[in-house]
Amino acid sequence: MKILTLTNEVKKELLDKLIKRSPNNYSQYEKNVDLIINEVKEKKDEALFDFTLKFDKANINTTNILVTNEEIDEAYEQVDNRIVDVIRKAKINIEKYHSKQKQNSWFTSEDGKLLGQKVTPLNRVGVYVPGGKAVYPSSVLMNVLPAKVAGVNEIIMCTPPMENAKAYAQTIVAANEAGVDKIYKVGGAQAIAAMAFGAESVPKVDKIVGPGNIYVALAKKAVFGYVGIDSIAGPSEILVLADETANPRYIAADLLSQAEHDELASAILVTTDLDLAKQVKIEIDNFIKVLSRKDIIEKSLENYGYIIVAENINDAIDVCNEIASEHLEIITKNPYETMTKIKNAGAIFLGEYSSEPLGDYFAGPNHVLPTNGTARFFSPLGVDDFIKKSSIISYSKEALEKVYKDIIYFAESEKLTAHANSIKVRFENEKGE
Amino acid sequence: MKILTLTNEVKKELLDKLIKRSPNNYSQYEKNVDLIINEVKEKKDEALFDFTLKFDKANINTTNILVTNEEIDEAYEQVDNRIVDVIRKAKINIEKYHSKQKQNSWFTSEDGKLLGQKVTPLNRVGVYVPGGKAVYPSSVLMNVLPAKVAGVNEIIMCTPPMENAKAYAQTIVAANEAGVDKIYKVGGAQAIAAMAFGAESVPKVDKIVGPGNIYVALAKKAVFGYVGIDSIAGPSEILVLADETANPRYIAADLLSQAEHDELASAILVTTDLDLAKQVKIEIDNFIKVLSRKDIIEKSLENYGYIIVAENINDAIDVCNEIASEHLEIITKNPYETMTKIKNAGAIFLGEYSSEPLGDYFAGPNHVLPTNGTARFFSPLGVDDFIKKSSIISYSKEALEKVYKDIIYFAESEKLTAHANSIKVRFENEKGE
Repeated sequence: MKILTLTNEVKKELLDKLIKRSPNNYSQYEKNVDLIINEVKEKKDEALFDFTLKFDKANINTTNILVTNEEIDEAYEQVDNRIVDVIRKAKINIEKYHSKQKQNSWFTSEDGKLLGQKVTPLNRVGVYVPGGKAVYPSSVLMNVLPAKVAGVNEIIMCTPPMENAKAYAQTIVAANEAGVDKIYKVGGAQAIAAMAFGAESVPKVDKIVGPGNIYVALAKKAVFGYVGIDSIAGPSEILVLADETANPRYIAADLLSQAEHDELASAILVTTDLDLAKQVKIEIDNFIKVLSRKDIIEKSLENYGYIIVAENINDAIDVCNEIASEHLEIITKNPYETMTKIKNAGAIFLGEYSSEPLGDYFAGPNHVLPTNGTARFFSPLGVDDFIKKSSIISYSKEALEKVYKDIIYFAESEKLTAHANSIKVRFENEKGE
Repeated sequence: MKILTLTNEVKKELLDKLIKRSPNNYSQYEKNVDLIINEVKEKKDEALFDFTLKFDKANINTTNILVTNEEIDEAYEQVDNRIVDVIRKAKINIEKYHSKQKQNSWFTSEDGKLLGQKVTPLNRVGVYVPGGKAVYPSSVLMNVLPAKVAGVNEIIMCTPPMENAKAYAQTIVAANEAGVDKIYKVGGAQAIAAMAFGAESVPKVDKIVGPGNIYVALAKKAVFGYVGIDSIAGPSEILVLADETANPRYIAADLLSQAEHDELASAILVTTDLDLAKQVKIEIDNFIKVLSRKDIIEKSLENYGYIIVAENINDAIDVCNEIASEHLEIITKNPYETMTKIKNAGAIFLGEYSSEPLGDYFAGPNHVLPTNGTARFFSPLGVDDFIKKSSIISYSKEALEKVYKDIIYFAESEKLTAHANSIKVRFENEKGE
């Protein structure tokens, strides 16, 4: 973990390094992903089953692709009762927070004119859930519950099977608790293609959400436009903005909590206090020794771990806005005041007891957040992702009559005479025309 | 214009045909687009100027790429005063409608816990405006004004120059009226790349919006993730849902108003009344003869024009929902009642005086709408496109203490021990731990 003084060069190096982790920089896999997508588009189920045998070593066919009620019961037997209990508690908080995000249809009306915006939930959504080394029930809740709250009609899930042709028990339990309608045992780019174009066994959806490896990320980007997708997820990040009032031990623990995700994860402290910087470094070195994911943490910190010392709080805030981190902890004398100057961050954690894992699991806000600087323009996953809007326009004859000559003029100035005609025809029998 | 009875086969043929118009089906241009993007990424201004000379036959350099105040004055001299007047009237309506879309930051608080969502406008947005055969001031207003209403800090525009190295006068005037900060004379995929990655002359933006040809559409898809983009626009569409109470002359005029856009545009009538269907066909044939864009209209109607007769209104509504049209006019006995059953449409026009061009130019709602079936999951362009959200999480020590054991359990069950540690460390000195 490097301690560096904030300069323009340091900032540039840091930003360049972080952006290189973008899934957009893995075009070498694009060809393979396109092959898989085209194969599924053409051969549908047959291709799904072939790829599942090839990549997951699992024998999946039309009779066992769907997780059955018996398999759901089995899954509950396999997991601890306490995890079910904790999932249910987290679910209450997540639903409560997301229900505040619901938007109403609205209209305005005056003098023969009604204008409005109609909010409609998506009809069918597909949630992708990875298997393998990272089975995260919390991720299932965070992806499914906003869709539930939005009122999506049908939520399906795709997740790669284990070699015994079963889905992971924790995934099944979390999906069932969250209210998923159907779970299909298929993963990778092939699952994304199936949900985008439909196969015999897997229905076409309106939008695909959920994390995945580089194949899944590229497949989602490739099908974007045929279906909606959530934002393109990169590796996880934490940024801590702290002054001399912060507890270095807490900061060290929080930085490590993101560094353990994977080798591309990034953990950065920006502080105005050199002493704090030094103490955090010492605490990190102590913690690493005892943490189970030591190897991952060491690689991630070596490449993407930084301790940056800024001259004053405004410089520190500026660099935080430029990094636009997925998670931002503010541990300063007055974190609310500092927060008012933050423009770019996925989730902002205020004060020393708002540690990042609180948001990952429990508090209620979504943990699917914009990564890799995309907090400049993307938002956390939420109810907005599972609705769409339609404009409503209704004018009476009288209302149209007041403005029709302007519309005709505008259309004709753009040389769109059939547009003009569609207005003209409604007043062709009027006197004086 | 074909009159067909609604059957599953007809529906399938229609949907298959419409989806083929998607910009996603033009991958043959992808390689060229990637070349242009990489060239701009690497050589920046130099590449922009070379491509502009090659594609637009215009000599653009650092001294003339930016539209000057003198050029703005010149542009006002070149356009009719009345268009400025109409632009200003339309602007008032568009701003009024979009200001209703503004969302507030919000928070909830109880018992040591504060959760919220912070709404922040994007910092810098790039609006692309095509040149050539389609210079549409209305499109400038529709793309720029929602960003203005959202509070975007800086709005830049890129638009291809004419051979004399000037931008189109109507575009300049509309941009100036809408409040664009800077207009750059560069077009095509090269303009998109410049706004995504930055060049010496053109600054990097957070999001790119605006229509364009297939090169522009593919370039926007390619840079998605580095920057935000609006939805991927396909050819324009109108769908009219009408019963026996509708005026066939109005419907014919409205169908033609979209058919004139381009040869890929689609115009569809779904009706429960065969007589109406026949009369609309006759009216269309009469109108075509006298309209200036006859050739485009004929080709578009031949390929993507349909009159569909459904047995009853519910069948008619179902097929409208499957088509998910950009524009939907409902001209039935009770259009509001019919509208309650519509799930997928970009903009819905109610009643016989709410003709589609009213929405294109004047009423206020945006005319940048989801095309090609994407109304299943995309919304009209609006203020939402120019803001992003950040979650806010703040727990007191007491609030965290009530739940910290559950969080630790959840993290450990996902084998993320550093996550668990970040919670544990905050209570390591408590009695009983």
